[in-house]
Amino acid sequence: MAESLDRFPAAQVGRQIGAVFRAWGMSEALIGASVEIMVETDLRGIDSHGIAMLPPYAQFRAEGKLNMTPDVRVVLDGPATAVLDGDSGLGHAASLQAVELAIGKARSLGLGAVAVRNSMHFGAAGAYALRIAQAGLVGLATTNASSRSLVPTRARDKLFGTNPLAFAAPAANNRPFVLDMATTTVAVGKVKLAWLNGKPMPSGWVVDENGAAETDGAKAFGQQQRFSERHGLTPLGGLADMASHKGYGLAAMVEILSAILPGASFIGLRGRKANPPMGNDIGHFFLAIDPKAFRTDDGFGTEMDAMIDQLHALPAADPALPVLVPGDPEEAARAERLRLGIPLPAILLEQLRELCRAANAEFVLEA
Amino acid sequence: MAESLDRFPAAQVGRQIGAVFRAWGMSEALIGASVEIMVETDLRGIDSHGIAMLPPYAQFRAEGKLNMTPDVRVVLDGPATAVLDGDSGLGHAASLQAVELAIGKARSLGLGAVAVRNSMHFGAAGAYALRIAQAGLVGLATTNASSRSLVPTRARDKLFGTNPLAFAAPAANNRPFVLDMATTTVAVGKVKLAWLNGKPMPSGWVVDENGAAETDGAKAFGQQQRFSERHGLTPLGGLADMASHKGYGLAAMVEILSAILPGASFIGLRGRKANPPMGNDIGHFFLAIDPKAFRTDDGFGTEMDAMIDQLHALPAADPALPVLVPGDPEEAARAERLRLGIPLPAILLEQLRELCRAANAEFVLEA
Repeated sequence: MAESLDRFPAAQVGRQIGAVFRAWGMSEALIGASVEIMVETDLRGIDSHGIAMLPPYAQFRAEGKLNMTPDVRVVLDGPATAVLDGDSGLGHAASLQAVELAIGKARSLGLGAVAVRNSMHFGAAGAYALRIAQAGLVGLATTNASSRSLVPTRARDKLFGTNPLAFAAPAANNRPFVLDMATTTVAVGKVKLAWLNGKPMPSGWVVDENGAAETDGAKAFGQQQRFSERHGLTPLGGLADMASHKGYGLAAMVEILSAILPGASFIGLRGRKANPPMGNDIGHFFLAIDPKAFRTDDGFGTEMDAMIDQLHALPAADPALPVLVPGDPEEAARAERLRLGIPLPAILLEQLRELCRAANAEFVLEA
Repeated sequence: MAESLDRFPAAQVGRQIGAVFRAWGMSEALIGASVEIMVETDLRGIDSHGIAMLPPYAQFRAEGKLNMTPDVRVVLDGPATAVLDGDSGLGHAASLQAVELAIGKARSLGLGAVAVRNSMHFGAAGAYALRIAQAGLVGLATTNASSRSLVPTRARDKLFGTNPLAFAAPAANNRPFVLDMATTTVAVGKVKLAWLNGKPMPSGWVVDENGAAETDGAKAFGQQQRFSERHGLTPLGGLADMASHKGYGLAAMVEILSAILPGASFIGLRGRKANPPMGNDIGHFFLAIDPKAFRTDDGFGTEMDAMIDQLHALPAADPALPVLVPGDPEEAARAERLRLGIPLPAILLEQLRELCRAANAEFVLEA
């Protein structure tokens, strides 16, 4: 990527997102939560899940799938658990509410799990797990997805989405440990990049309908900027002899926790409810665990530090590539972007300009 | 494996395990729990974690690391959480107790998590997750390990063990979904088999100290039947361009939940406690979730069935290899072994005969 991108301060990116949501009729309270999560995601370098989601969100809206004035409600509330109905709104605000509920339950009982049903895209799972870690707790966040991209081991056809899982835990002196991963080998965006750059993909990112590795991004992902009927992402592991059945199993686990547990739609049953909601009815799951319920000393944070420090101190196979701890790349991106701004590709800026024109929203990202 | 193995009824295998534990001085209550879990593991085809563990357990005992008369105690007991001290005994009985506690808490609060510290090997993680699913709940089970086998992405040296994770969920008509996986690409036993059979391993199971794939099992795992200083298992994913950082992150997650959370020893700090216990001080973590706390209809089981049935119905890339659901291979092994008996290799039978002689225990596995 030799291209030099225009950069924008986080606040300016946030103003742009807010202006679009306001023009779409979203209430101010929901705008605050969505902007906060999306800008934080862009700061952390997860470019596919921040402001770059506005065009797909516009598409959901055009298709009549996105409720801009959702009535997010707690529909079940137990001592350690709760379920929210997201009313077909974007998932950010409902998920932040779910996370705060889970944190409160974990503070009082040691453990809290809150799920959201009838939701839409919530951005990056890591943002929610990190929130829980910032509250001093151990956090897990999962979501299922609205489009099929993963080919289960041995299958010809796709079934699950990229079904991400995020896990975070606080340390005493280091920043929190934050694992944020799709359960596919790579995210859709990496295949798109290989196609755009005309470079072959490593064998095992994508398979064709015969279960054989496809390395040509144009074949897998050309034309309509989506997977061909014949191609899909491998589960983490890659091909069958590299234990892709484990990544497939993890994707199913995420589907169970996020969708089947709280009564959102399992992707294979989407649209088949008696009174299907207007949106994609995806689900999210959040778990918070208080270390104080498991040990009375203050060793949790210091032993997290010992683990993180030992990992950083491991000799590297290639001295130019030091050993990283999950969350390091995101933290490095955040430090750089707070200083220099968030880089946005020209193509995205053009899409956003057009989107603002259509929505009658101010375009605030002039270079 | 053209070799035809002698087979033994499950009850006979259980009598043998019990005879050895009794000769080693274990109390009857603990024998019952350990035998039950180990025989069930052999029935489910996880040959590395059942009766084949007796020789390594004998080794722990010879090294003075294994307490055969542990005083397993609940040391912390909150409404939704608890911690047990395993007192350096084998982990099976303490883990079954932890699972029962977690199930009880989940039945009353919707959610229960119980961990065990100061424990030893507990067998296969899947056995405990399955117990939770058999109680009608969603279950997660993790454990850290006593020996280093996983090379974190980019590192020269091993740090974590195979750190397995198991997840199970009940269905209405199908048997439970049971994912039971090491967070390494393959388990140590698969490398041993490649070495024994003189076959090259797929590129990406094992790396050398330069982070390069090692396909020669003899180089990675010859001589002492353990990894050379220079070799180790890759995290799930395999090599760096296949996203092994995700498997490495999952292994760290398992270490955090199993060891750091309940105050067992993080593998990098083993033996460094002020009063180190006699055993390896590994830890286990069990989570139980009651679907009834998340939805008031009875849709959980029927939608699990829909997912399992849709996965089984997916067209296969190779019609000779149908799409499996996590737990299928174990269930097939169980059905076959209940009918035909548990196959035991001649080498293992010889080791067990010798072990019985040394322990003054009856050898009951004459062919």
